[in-house]
Amino acid sequence: MREQLEQLISHIEPLDGQMVEEAMQHLDQLTKPPGSLGKLENIAAQVAGITGELHPAFAKKAVIVMAGDHGVCEEGISAFPSEVTPQMVYNFLNGGAAVNVLARHAGADVVCVDIGVNADMEHPKLVSRKVRKGTANMAKGPAMSQDEAIQAILAGAEIVEQHVADGYKIFATGEMGIGNTTASAAILSVLTGMSSEETVGRGTGIDDERMLHKQAIVRQAIQVNRPNTKDPLDVLAKVGGLEIAGLVGVILGAARHQCPVVIDGFISSAAALIASRIEPLTSGYMIGSHLSQEQGHESLLEEIGLTPVLQLDMRLGEGTGAVLAFTLIDAATKIMREMATFASAGVSSGE
Amino acid sequence: MREQLEQLISHIEPLDGQMVEEAMQHLDQLTKPPGSLGKLENIAAQVAGITGELHPAFAKKAVIVMAGDHGVCEEGISAFPSEVTPQMVYNFLNGGAAVNVLARHAGADVVCVDIGVNADMEHPKLVSRKVRKGTANMAKGPAMSQDEAIQAILAGAEIVEQHVADGYKIFATGEMGIGNTTASAAILSVLTGMSSEETVGRGTGIDDERMLHKQAIVRQAIQVNRPNTKDPLDVLAKVGGLEIAGLVGVILGAARHQCPVVIDGFISSAAALIASRIEPLTSGYMIGSHLSQEQGHESLLEEIGLTPVLQLDMRLGEGTGAVLAFTLIDAATKIMREMATFASAGVSSGE
Repeated sequence: MREQLEQLISHIEPLDGQMVEEAMQHLDQLTKPPGSLGKLENIAAQVAGITGELHPAFAKKAVIVMAGDHGVCEEGISAFPSEVTPQMVYNFLNGGAAVNVLARHAGADVVCVDIGVNADMEHPKLVSRKVRKGTANMAKGPAMSQDEAIQAILAGAEIVEQHVADGYKIFATGEMGIGNTTASAAILSVLTGMSSEETVGRGTGIDDERMLHKQAIVRQAIQVNRPNTKDPLDVLAKVGGLEIAGLVGVILGAARHQCPVVIDGFISSAAALIASRIEPLTSGYMIGSHLSQEQGHESLLEEIGLTPVLQLDMRLGEGTGAVLAFTLIDAATKIMREMATFASAGVSSGE
Repeated sequence: MREQLEQLISHIEPLDGQMVEEAMQHLDQLTKPPGSLGKLENIAAQVAGITGELHPAFAKKAVIVMAGDHGVCEEGISAFPSEVTPQMVYNFLNGGAAVNVLARHAGADVVCVDIGVNADMEHPKLVSRKVRKGTANMAKGPAMSQDEAIQAILAGAEIVEQHVADGYKIFATGEMGIGNTTASAAILSVLTGMSSEETVGRGTGIDDERMLHKQAIVRQAIQVNRPNTKDPLDVLAKVGGLEIAGLVGVILGAARHQCPVVIDGFISSAAALIASRIEPLTSGYMIGSHLSQEQGHESLLEEIGLTPVLQLDMRLGEGTGAVLAFTLIDAATKIMREMATFASAGVSSGE
């Protein structure tokens, strides 16, 4: 299984630099001061380099929502009980959650994956790739084995591969898992050396007292497991989560198939950090979406080198910020395709 | 004419506070932690208060692009020559500019108004409301008379009124006018006391030397005209612009007809500041869009009390940032209409 992962990684290539250059040259001929469309221009050039096409169009889009439970919830680190994970998965499957509404708005499909929910689940639309029923309590030992982490990664990559075969060309990361801001904070602390005071946030909305407790649990999980900071897979297995591992696979799979992958909030960004440490070339395929209100998200984005395009003070996860960013990526591709040039419009360019 | 303006202002009312409250109560029943959709929730509550409807839908949207020239261009403060103003207006009318592409993307119509272009213009789609052929050079005297400023304001308000009659329910501000960041910086300096070093930016892209000159021209315009800081109309007439005055009218007109008005970048925000000083109730009808790269924009937004939702490093104007924000406002209204409640989805709410 480790060989399968290594093979996947070996197929990830750098962006097409010449296509990036061509896109930038085209952008400078359009009727606007050079660079004045800011990040929309960066995105247009980046997706040209990712896809190898000057004018890509992303007709079919998917947000892959990975759901998993966290054994560490027994330490009382969340404002919501674990039973909310499967309840919300059914809400996704029935189309009633925020990510469903916003995905429809963006013309994207929601793909809901049970990668590790601690309940027996059945639904015609559910993609069942359960590795185990939730992680173990990382405050007492490893959240999962490395084999389990790899299994979840490969599941994520395969789901992307199947959707690429069905014509999907752009992906967003989403997740559901009560307790997963705790795991994400632990990943951020281990991989950057930041203290738990800096990486732990309020998640779905805990009070000061519980936040102090959550910080202590993150410190304890790191102390008990001593993850190898040089080995992202070890970090993922010991203090991560099944949905985070699944998203690592989504990101690796998207990069391997030359598809842009839009990174949602704090938890998705923890997966993106792991993916970029496993294979730094993956960063080129990532597009930042929003800056979450969760403490630690800004540091995470900086560490990966992503810049958000939306500033909505959101803190919901599910992929909600990422699917909203789809609309801006579509806008960037339309700028490339539809805007007039100085020459075609008869407009004088600057001095 | 001054009486017409006073009558317009007298019809502007506060938001419907009870509807804001009802919207917030509904948002808290949806399957998400309270407040976790951040500014989308604020927008949903605000548009309920503006329209008096819990579930407004904005099928018809318009960005009103006001175009005018600036006499101060003869001082050499811009990277582009004045002839670009009419050239770009034709580009708007032919659908090739950035604002056309992004408006189509957002499902909005571009309404292009000649409120003061320094050229004879004809086009079947052009709304001709020319007050005069460009402003006078504000470095030597008033940009225009107060009567001319009022005429431009009333034209903006009337255009909104006509579109409301045609079923449009939301508006965005856009503009074109070589030299108009100079006028906007002057407005910001006069109304806040900020120095020209703080309010003058690079516009479409000037170098350091020309920026120092632009700062000096702003200081000179203020010194020569001594605008009355307590009289926003006097400030608008002496150091403003015809397109800025037209946008003041668009904002007053939208507020008068209980329509949200999305404020674009630096120049539109200068118009919004004037409008909010003429009638503070107008601020409630404004929705911020993006934070422009133009120095001074952040201070302008703070002064009005607007928070941007997009962070795209754009600096193009035309209404480009505002029409992109239309897509987020639509998203907010869909959240209100389409999301499941905790009760309907059978999801446990927090402790």
